[in-house]
Amino acid sequence: MSTLGPGREFDAIRALVRAWGRSASGIGDDAAVLDVPRGMRLVTSTDTSVADVHFRHAWLSADEIGWRATMAALSDLAAMGASPLGVLVAVSLPPERWSDLPALGHGIGAAVHEAGTVIVGGDTTRSATLSLTITVLGAAARPLARSGAQPGDAIWVTGVLGGPGRALEAWQQGRVPASADRARFARPVARLAAGRWLAANGATAAIDISDGLLADLAHVAHASGVRCCVHLDDLPCVAGAATRAVAVSGEEYELLVTAPRTLDLRAFASAIDLPLTCIGHVEAGAPEVVVDAAGVRVEITGGYDHLSG
Amino acid sequence: MSTLGPGREFDAIRALVRAWGRSASGIGDDAAVLDVPRGMRLVTSTDTSVADVHFRHAWLSADEIGWRATMAALSDLAAMGASPLGVLVAVSLPPERWSDLPALGHGIGAAVHEAGTVIVGGDTTRSATLSLTITVLGAAARPLARSGAQPGDAIWVTGVLGGPGRALEAWQQGRVPASADRARFARPVARLAAGRWLAANGATAAIDISDGLLADLAHVAHASGVRCCVHLDDLPCVAGAATRAVAVSGEEYELLVTAPRTLDLRAFASAIDLPLTCIGHVEAGAPEVVVDAAGVRVEITGGYDHLSG
Repeated sequence: MSTLGPGREFDAIRALVRAWGRSASGIGDDAAVLDVPRGMRLVTSTDTSVADVHFRHAWLSADEIGWRATMAALSDLAAMGASPLGVLVAVSLPPERWSDLPALGHGIGAAVHEAGTVIVGGDTTRSATLSLTITVLGAAARPLARSGAQPGDAIWVTGVLGGPGRALEAWQQGRVPASADRARFARPVARLAAGRWLAANGATAAIDISDGLLADLAHVAHASGVRCCVHLDDLPCVAGAATRAVAVSGEEYELLVTAPRTLDLRAFASAIDLPLTCIGHVEAGAPEVVVDAAGVRVEITGGYDHLSG
Repeated sequence: MSTLGPGREFDAIRALVRAWGRSASGIGDDAAVLDVPRGMRLVTSTDTSVADVHFRHAWLSADEIGWRATMAALSDLAAMGASPLGVLVAVSLPPERWSDLPALGHGIGAAVHEAGTVIVGGDTTRSATLSLTITVLGAAARPLARSGAQPGDAIWVTGVLGGPGRALEAWQQGRVPASADRARFARPVARLAAGRWLAANGATAAIDISDGLLADLAHVAHASGVRCCVHLDDLPCVAGAATRAVAVSGEEYELLVTAPRTLDLRAFASAIDLPLTCIGHVEAGAPEVVVDAAGVRVEITGGYDHLSG
């Protein structure tokens, strides 16, 4: 068994804290202390990224691995309409990847900085596989749930979909992905400002797209007890993507939101620099997702299956 | 690559939620929502336990692995004098250990129940190695830090030390540990009530013993800028343990606390069913830990090094 006792663990922590600079705050006690602003509720989630499950080392730099894991975790706060208060970072890595630590830390720190928050604590340990578990802490006056979708609501999605799916497909076929597709996989951005705006302006339910639009919308349909109808032709797609592939492209970290049709699109556009597209509507009925293309119902099976392909 | 797509991930979550019963609360949204009681601060920490680093499968049952990882994380709240509000559980496991999930979940749930809290969320993924990252959320009106030790304080420790070190030593020598020693390693108990009592009754600094008494006391000495003097003969030791080994026995999850000598031991004894032993005192001076035995200064090198031995 290799050795990585407290000495090396403290070296690891020092390497990370150096990489984080002012993005690290108050690290050094057994636990971090934070204040949730008065009138706000604590919103928290944890998310693990594992080498060869969520990414391959051949695809991403250590910096990108750190960024992506952190943004994927922060995306859960975005889906709840919450503002981040802080992030806890647990890093497990094999001794032969030890030298990746500064770059990994840099990517984590850059994502945390981009999201306007700080790293408040963490843990480092050795392991057979590189793994990051990022825990996010946020606050929201009225957190958005998956369960509030109402018949009559429209269904909206942020951004443009399909890039991560196309990048994965290219890698799995031994091709180099188009750089725009690769960037959507390697450098996702948690839609925090969009989530907060939507929560404050009438959204009834939200989820972030991690398993694929249809799979994630099914969670909303079941949690809300409603039927969700998606118009395939209305999906905002990256150049070159087939709409059926876009409908199941995972790890997009865009927001899927239900809201009354009266949602003020102009106000959204003036506040948030991100496309917001109506892709369907909510009906009373058995909880399910139904899809049509040019008015004809279609069946789309399969969903995002991490790297099982 | 083996397959563990969303289907199996949801099966895993269902298996865990079944094992947790009423110890799971509000799981199902992108993030959990909690309230920090008014006037209290949020206290949070994350802790990873990895197979073949923190334990070996040959030593512990899956139930014990779950319990131990959870109590180790909760111990950080105890050291801060905080009350737990909830726990997030990230489980990574290899497909061949899939069948361990209910027992692992049972151990986690039992520890959470013992600590009087609930599981509010988590993540499951496959990995080459079993790994648990437990994030604890707690609240305290006045969290205890490592940095408050004052010259003139006494140094106290809860419980009786040395069991985990003796268990590890036996396993590493191919022997079966004594059952009391094994239980101290396999079934630690976070000293939450003791931590709260001490925080409310004059403790100036605290840390939990994870790396060994001397190594953890050194953190207090450095954070507080004081010299900590330990009387080796005063350490509370399990039967059969050498005091020098006890001084470096790790993963004890007992509390090491500084407090004025006027600490009300009778009140502690009537409130908390746990030994509390004075093992030394705090002096002004360069930050260090000095140790004496029968009044003669001794040097003790080495500390807890996980499974590197």
